[in-house]
Amino acid sequence: MINVNSSGESLGARYLAVRQQSLDICEPLEIEDHLVQPMDDASPPKWHLAHVTWFFETFLLKPFVSDYKVYDDAYEVLFNSYYNGVGEQHPRSKRGLLSRPTLVDILDYRRYVDEHMRRLLEGDLDQDRLFRVVLGLHHEQQHQELLYTDIKYNFGNNPLLPPYSEIHGRDRPAGEGRSLDFVAYEGGIYEIGVNPESISGLNFAFDNESPRHEVLVGDFAIADRPATNGEFLAFMNDGGYERPELWLSDAWGLLKRQRPEARWGCPLYWFERDGEWFEYTLRGVEPLAMSNPVCHVSAYEADAFARWKGMRLPTEQEWEVMASDIEIDGNFAESGTLHPGPVPAGRGVQQVFGDVWEWTASSYSAYPGFKPFAGALGEYNGKFMANQLVLRGGSCATPRSHIRRTYRNFFYPKDRWQFSGIRLAAAE
Amino acid sequence: MINVNSSGESLGARYLAVRQQSLDICEPLEIEDHLVQPMDDASPPKWHLAHVTWFFETFLLKPFVSDYKVYDDAYEVLFNSYYNGVGEQHPRSKRGLLSRPTLVDILDYRRYVDEHMRRLLEGDLDQDRLFRVVLGLHHEQQHQELLYTDIKYNFGNNPLLPPYSEIHGRDRPAGEGRSLDFVAYEGGIYEIGVNPESISGLNFAFDNESPRHEVLVGDFAIADRPATNGEFLAFMNDGGYERPELWLSDAWGLLKRQRPEARWGCPLYWFERDGEWFEYTLRGVEPLAMSNPVCHVSAYEADAFARWKGMRLPTEQEWEVMASDIEIDGNFAESGTLHPGPVPAGRGVQQVFGDVWEWTASSYSAYPGFKPFAGALGEYNGKFMANQLVLRGGSCATPRSHIRRTYRNFFYPKDRWQFSGIRLAAAE
Amino acid sequence: MINVNSSGESLGARYLAVRQQSLDICEPLEIEDHLVQPMDDASPPKWHLAHVTWFFETFLLKPFVSDYKVYDDAYEVLFNSYYNGVGEQHPRSKRGLLSRPTLVDILDYRRYVDEHMRRLLEGDLDQDRLFRVVLGLHHEQQHQELLYTDIKYNFGNNPLLPPYSEIHGRDRPAGEGRSLDFVAYEGGIYEIGVNPESISGLNFAFDNESPRHEVLVGDFAIADRPATNGEFLAFMNDGGYERPELWLSDAWGLLKRQRPEARWGCPLYWFERDGEWFEYTLRGVEPLAMSNPVCHVSAYEADAFARWKGMRLPTEQEWEVMASDIEIDGNFAESGTLHPGPVPAGRGVQQVFGDVWEWTASSYSAYPGFKPFAGALGEYNGKFMANQLVLRGGSCATPRSHIRRTYRNFFYPKDRWQFSGIRLAAAE
Amino acid sequence: MINVNSSGESLGARYLAVRQQSLDICEPLEIEDHLVQPMDDASPPKWHLAHVTWFFETFLLKPFVSDYKVYDDAYEVLFNSYYNGVGEQHPRSKRGLLSRPTLVDILDYRRYVDEHMRRLLEGDLDQDRLFRVVLGLHHEQQHQELLYTDIKYNFGNNPLLPPYSEIHGRDRPAGEGRSLDFVAYEGGIYEIGVNPESISGLNFAFDNESPRHEVLVGDFAIADRPATNGEFLAFMNDGGYERPELWLSDAWGLLKRQRPEARWGCPLYWFERDGEWFEYTLRGVEPLAMSNPVCHVSAYEADAFARWKGMRLPTEQEWEVMASDIEIDGNFAESGTLHPGPVPAGRGVQQVFGDVWEWTASSYSAYPGFKPFAGALGEYNGKFMANQLVLRGGSCATPRSHIRRTYRNFFYPKDRWQFSGIRLAAAE
Repeated sequence: MINVNSSGESLGARYLAVRQQSLDICEPLEIEDHLVQPMDDASPPKWHLAHVTWFFETFLLKPFVSDYKVYDDAYEVLFNSYYNGVGEQHPRSKRGLLSRPTLVDILDYRRYVDEHMRRLLEGDLDQDRLFRVVLGLHHEQQHQELLYTDIKYNFGNNPLLPPYSEIHGRDRPAGEGRSLDFVAYEGGIYEIGVNPESISGLNFAFDNESPRHEVLVGDFAIADRPATNGEFLAFMNDGGYERPELWLSDAWGLLKRQRPEARWGCPLYWFERDGEWFEYTLRGVEPLAMSNPVCHVSAYEADAFARWKGMRLPTEQEWEVMASDIEIDGNFAESGTLHPGPVPAGRGVQQVFGDVWEWTASSYSAYPGFKPFAGALGEYNGKFMANQLVLRGGSCATPRSHIRRTYRNFFYPKDRWQFSGIRLAAAE
Repeated sequence: MINVNSSGESLGARYLAVRQQSLDICEPLEIEDHLVQPMDDASPPKWHLAHVTWFFETFLLKPFVSDYKVYDDAYEVLFNSYYNGVGEQHPRSKRGLLSRPTLVDILDYRRYVDEHMRRLLEGDLDQDRLFRVVLGLHHEQQHQELLYTDIKYNFGNNPLLPPYSEIHGRDRPAGEGRSLDFVAYEGGIYEIGVNPESISGLNFAFDNESPRHEVLVGDFAIADRPATNGEFLAFMNDGGYERPELWLSDAWGLLKRQRPEARWGCPLYWFERDGEWFEYTLRGVEPLAMSNPVCHVSAYEADAFARWKGMRLPTEQEWEVMASDIEIDGNFAESGTLHPGPVPAGRGVQQVFGDVWEWTASSYSAYPGFKPFAGALGEYNGKFMANQLVLRGGSCATPRSHIRRTYRNFFYPKDRWQFSGIRLAAAE
Repeated sequence: MINVNSSGESLGARYLAVRQQSLDICEPLEIEDHLVQPMDDASPPKWHLAHVTWFFETFLLKPFVSDYKVYDDAYEVLFNSYYNGVGEQHPRSKRGLLSRPTLVDILDYRRYVDEHMRRLLEGDLDQDRLFRVVLGLHHEQQHQELLYTDIKYNFGNNPLLPPYSEIHGRDRPAGEGRSLDFVAYEGGIYEIGVNPESISGLNFAFDNESPRHEVLVGDFAIADRPATNGEFLAFMNDGGYERPELWLSDAWGLLKRQRPEARWGCPLYWFERDGEWFEYTLRGVEPLAMSNPVCHVSAYEADAFARWKGMRLPTEQEWEVMASDIEIDGNFAESGTLHPGPVPAGRGVQQVFGDVWEWTASSYSAYPGFKPFAGALGEYNGKFMANQLVLRGGSCATPRSHIRRTYRNFFYPKDRWQFSGIRLAAAE
Repeated sequence: MINVNSSGESLGARYLAVRQQSLDICEPLEIEDHLVQPMDDASPPKWHLAHVTWFFETFLLKPFVSDYKVYDDAYEVLFNSYYNGVGEQHPRSKRGLLSRPTLVDILDYRRYVDEHMRRLLEGDLDQDRLFRVVLGLHHEQQHQELLYTDIKYNFGNNPLLPPYSEIHGRDRPAGEGRSLDFVAYEGGIYEIGVNPESISGLNFAFDNESPRHEVLVGDFAIADRPATNGEFLAFMNDGGYERPELWLSDAWGLLKRQRPEARWGCPLYWFERDGEWFEYTLRGVEPLAMSNPVCHVSAYEADAFARWKGMRLPTEQEWEVMASDIEIDGNFAESGTLHPGPVPAGRGVQQVFGDVWEWTASSYSAYPGFKPFAGALGEYNGKFMANQLVLRGGSCATPRSHIRRTYRNFFYPKDRWQFSGIRLAAAE
């Protein structure tokens, strides 16, 4: 049956599981925590919960369920993120001002849509509908990661630094650290990306990963683990943030425009107290673990760090070649640690998947022959192909089933609130 | 007993009543409504509830109760509004980001402080302590009015326009309107303000109302009622917002800098639909009542309207002369209408107290011989004596017992979110 | 003859003299110096030269000379400062971008208008025309002072700190300084301002000085000289700029918003080098003369300084009472020093006129019964009656014949680029 | 001799010719025109003339001429553009405020440096010095193009719209237009870029063009001429600027943030009058020539236009493959037209070089193995490799001898003041 995935899970069960997961993430929150928006990029949890619901209502229930009665006309605008093809949008910067609808209202909305979706999923789904359901689930998983990062941004900027999770134990013991080694790959013509025909049924990929195509890659050598907090601290202690020769011009201009109280001098969430370094994690404040992957750095910081090391960031083509025979396993959201952990034992390239998203040197642009999804869904990815960079591999906040070797995440080079880290490549 | 006021109410009972009133105002709110801050000037209700509590803790419990244990050290910064003499302050623009402490935490804080205040009030109070208690209560009453205006600003900017109160009935039937007449006053030397010696026990006035002093006022004539919605609509229909000759230069510059979607073209909370005018009130959306006082106008709009009428705004000296023999009665917060109502029957000057604050032409500055309160409390009023204008008379959101003939409210000429209206004076 | 003033100078001769004076002020400038606009408030000298010419063309030649051919239609917009009643205006902030028309073009424009004005002045002038000519000359004198202040702002912000004038000699020898004494005045009812009927022929005053009216002033005592650089330096050395209790709230907010490189820590144009203080003057950089009047301070700084001294700024009413029997004499633009000088010998209140404009505590507002000039000329003064403060007495950059005891200058409390200083009054 | 180029011109003669060319470009300007800076990106001509001189002084005279006496220490900061390795820089946004040094001073500076350069060029030059001289000349040629674009931006934003050049004749007669055809290229592995070893003597290329490397390009078809004004007008008439589905998200956000008076609705310098379209050119205002290449469009507009056509922008790799056998000839600065002209007769791909820079879809990034120039000169190109896009081919404002097939120009996708146009590629 097409509605059953490789693990034998039915689509209906999958729908319920993914939907429940969003609620589970919010479970430790107070009602107030669902509302705040400490910066334009970080949406309130309540808004995330409503928007992913709006997605199913807008792209499945409204067009395909003939007698479907819209839950609330106002929600069409309030919870539209950026789909101009659907209509107007409540201004992004004002999502945190919506005390109404309340969380209770949003949860009612979710139940209403879930009930109608349940009926829809019980019927036969043609390819288009099936695709939209699966897309909606991957969409919700993306917002699950954003829930973690946005909650962290809220708590990490609250003077009380409240912990989100009480789980202080870690899945792996703190490592001894390991020296940084490079693994060499031979250049040549490789294939990357996804064949669009293979996106069907529960086999999913985003349009931006497609089509599969040949790339010419030179010889390269890539780090066998992400850069660590300790390595990044050495960059800081060597005056990294004060040396213009290490920084891209746009990055240096940004540093010089920042007000003193907001000037970058370390990764986001780090702070020094009495000569010791700490970082805010979703588990609360912890001493900086020197052999853990450095996290919450912008691409600008990643690039400056790489230049200081005499190295560079890999391209996304190199990364995908490297990842092509690595098992998709690692410290994902399901581990519950919600923080990058130490490098595991073992030979070869480690921590490729999970722990931290890895900035690449590649601008986020269309693969040759790229075709956006049809209709308003075409706004999902394509229109963001300007000024952003590709990140690869997923993080400790990414659902395990959401990631692929071909998965292209993208953020602006200045962004730091994602679990973004650094994997170096050797300079040619 | 010094601790009993003119109505025989003990200070302890008065304390409890005022404190309870703040909670009552928030009673119709959802938890989320306590948190939002739709503009820097409008603080979240939760913050108001905590700040007025912080005031008692900071200015009474900490200095005067020897074994008092501070409830939470972090609150000293979080809920300090602007007292540099006390210490650092959480940035005003970020009050709406404090999902923690939660409302529940704040209510616990209130109970803790109230319990300690109860004990303090049971003992003997010297003049200084008594003064601080009374000041704290008037302070809390000011924030009760701000609770109404800030809640209104939140709801009135929410696309759902939720009502705050279900009370649609009004204290007085909608009036027929009445023609605008002017009452003449003879010029001469008058006394205004409050003798500082008379501020003692429960006889309270703010430092900025003091000292009582002579002023020379010319002959003047002042409107016998506030300007109405209907009159203001006539101004609009005559192109009032598009005629630079009616506006102060700073006002016209402001209008021209406003983005189209935010350009002033009517008072705050008004909107037109299908050729009819409506306004958002705390009771929900209502058709514009033409003979009610116009409200939520800036001093810039009041001044332009007056110029269009060939009239002017009164000075605060004229206003106080006019008010000197008017009974302090009217549509205050206790009426529960929470909206200005029609002019009552009766001869002479009407609606001087309550309904709407009345912009004066007077800049907010020190009376001759002004002395601020001692210590950090000196920051209460004096440091705001720049760039603001005086408003007089109280509004439908002001507690009845809070107002005085000498009371000087002050806001920037651009501010519109208070219940601010217009009483005209005849041009000389 | 009406066209001859008290010194027997004909109006035509007066016109030529005032017009020539503007050119003389620009004589030491390079062509480039005529163009720059280092902040929105400081217009390019070329623009000043054109605007004052536009004033005569717009308010005299166009309405009253039947066959007058406008010099260039584009100039109507380019050189209109703020007269909405005349029409559109080139944006103020973009005056410094007008490389065309060139200085040569502007000088041609001046000659053209002067030639037509010569003919008009040769004929009979009715009261209205005469008034407009005299107004135009006072207007040009105001811009002569602005030429000095705007040139100083340009040069004083140029890294090369070029001198404007080579005259390093001073009109008076550097004084020994003199102790600060206060002169007491008895309170009572005084008359201030100008009778509007007396504004006729060559007897001129601005509308904002009118009408003459009674004011009630309490007993007061006012400093017998302006505050000095040495006194202000003592304020600085006592941490004046870092102590919030000394500052108005708006002022302290401004200080905290300023970027570090632009943070106020001394008067404009002061700088420290190797432990010594210097100031840029129109004569170039000079060591700070400790007994000279402090200059280029905002009203915010004047107010903080006064509070630090336990004193206050005088009101404009007090100032005018004090000035009522002081001879209008002093260090004006004609002295050529272009900088405030030391207090002269002599008893009683000194340096009331000339040297530095003196900030008052009075907001700039309408006198009772104020009537603006008729028509578009009504925009000259009245529309600025918001958010500004009155300064009195003229400065070393003011033409001697431009000042009056009743003269009301006005600027925002944050403004520092005028020759603005401080005369203290004793606290009541 | 190494100091003689392929046309037999000595390096000294070349130096003089390039230096003179900068002066020739400024010859039609008034003194004031040399000073204005209508936006941060557009430097004053005077500053350009000084900065290119500073380049020779800083990178040749100071390090290599032992007894060289620096012309003016202040110039080191004033005319340093962005070389942090050299030292501090006068803020870019304040270049237009430097009335001093005057144009006369700058011309003196040029003569002084030229005299010392003449002596240096008469001696033997090692490879490093020779390289720096040649780099300095190419640097000055870049600024010659910027002189044209910045002068145009100044004049084109001046309400008088003054012409820069009186040459209204064109090098080619207005064409009939020609239909848009596509030329197909076969995919495969190609080499692009420049071998760094070949950069020596007078053979010059920038570091960002290096190293030469293999790229894999798919089959592609590219337009045989640039898109025309007429074609772009059709896009506008079809609502192009109002249809979000045509625009990148960042572009649409930019459009929506623009104030009404500055909202993009056509290419820069276009305007409509009485139903006819005109454009400001360096020759003054001209009716829009429909079959000329569209110019002064941002990459955002180019991308939206391409999407509207169902096409795309080429990559820089495709462009270089296409250009590999095209003669470097066309409408360059030397033609004196200073405006893109009609497509010439002839078969095949036309107007590849000259007329308009062609936006590519390629982000400006490092070629594999990229090595910046050594020392502070390494800041020339490399640090700008973020957020910008590559343009190719040169324009009507580019000196003929400055361009190469491998030349990579780069600007932000929002930039419009360069002579930037569009060559379409067929969608795959």
